[in-house]
Amino acid sequence: MEFRDLVMQRYATKRFDGRAVPEETVQAILDLARFAPSALNLQPWRIRVVTAPAQKEQLLGASWNQRQITSCSHLLVCCANRDLDAVVARLERALVEAAAPEPMRQAVVGMAQGLAQSLSAEGALAWAQGQVQLLVANLLLAAQAHGVASCPMSGFDAAAYSRILELPASLVPTMLVPLGYPADTPAPKLRYALDELLV
Amino acid sequence: MEFRDLVMQRYATKRFDGRAVPEETVQAILDLARFAPSALNLQPWRIRVVTAPAQKEQLLGASWNQRQITSCSHLLVCCANRDLDAVVARLERALVEAAAPEPMRQAVVGMAQGLAQSLSAEGALAWAQGQVQLLVANLLLAAQAHGVASCPMSGFDAAAYSRILELPASLVPTMLVPLGYPADTPAPKLRYALDELLV
Repeated sequence: MEFRDLVMQRYATKRFDGRAVPEETVQAILDLARFAPSALNLQPWRIRVVTAPAQKEQLLGASWNQRQITSCSHLLVCCANRDLDAVVARLERALVEAAAPEPMRQAVVGMAQGLAQSLSAEGALAWAQGQVQLLVANLLLAAQAHGVASCPMSGFDAAAYSRILELPASLVPTMLVPLGYPADTPAPKLRYALDELLV
Repeated sequence: MEFRDLVMQRYATKRFDGRAVPEETVQAILDLARFAPSALNLQPWRIRVVTAPAQKEQLLGASWNQRQITSCSHLLVCCANRDLDAVVARLERALVEAAAPEPMRQAVVGMAQGLAQSLSAEGALAWAQGQVQLLVANLLLAAQAHGVASCPMSGFDAAAYSRILELPASLVPTMLVPLGYPADTPAPKLRYALDELLV
């Protein structure tokens, strides 16, 4: 499928029909999302996959009762990792393991440490949450490429999600991406004209 | 081209060969990027396209002398719009013009106003900057789909960019996306394994 068709066919699905997406399809979507870009390749994100109906019911109340949560097949809870020191240390280990050239490794790790030190705790979280959007954008298109509908959602109670899913304190639920098959039809896409995008 | 190939072929190009990307190709890339998703469809972003060599030279010094700035064909300066009241008012006008159903319009505008009111000035900027990442992710893939290389860049002096490009105070340069044809070759992609992505 042409990339343009992917972009135009993707839409924020409000109702799913409850059918299960095959596990291998979800794995393929997640595997593609792994290759999203991130600043300095820091990949400051993790995903919790929720499929159990009882857990979705618990999360529904923490999601303004938006029915995507319970009607989807797989609910991807995309989390920002705000522990930038750990994020940088992990990248350094990975570069060592991959036998990356020493000067490149030192340069990247040095810039990453500089970034981490320049940010307040709040700034670090905002930064990591911005990076999660890069992951989500790839996820949405990867799902569409596999014939799976999705809906990016930011309206939910992140603290309640952390509690219900027993997530580590370093991870902050940032975006939800329910996956499934649509039980609605898309409205026409409303976007500003190109001359309004440009400045 | 398959979406997987797009994702795997895209890389952060560090050196461009200076050849110009045809204007109609850049327009097609920008036109695709328009359809990036955003929360409540608020599209809180604008892009300045820089092609003049003298202006690129001026920006180089505000970009840690990273040579993508001057060797690229088109430099896209992706800006966050931090004036959320204006962003919400613009969406409301667009929904009226598009004759969107009244209950949907009221619901969307109500949620958008709630969002804008819930955020501090700093929070509004961080939010809009997060949304810009969704635009950038689409831009990078749209470029690749058109055979054009790119490089997402966040390391630059945003205030200097605003000054040099005489941008309105509401717009904050957030990500640079130089476009062109590569004069380097990609390193192997280093990404964490799927079980490290999941939590």
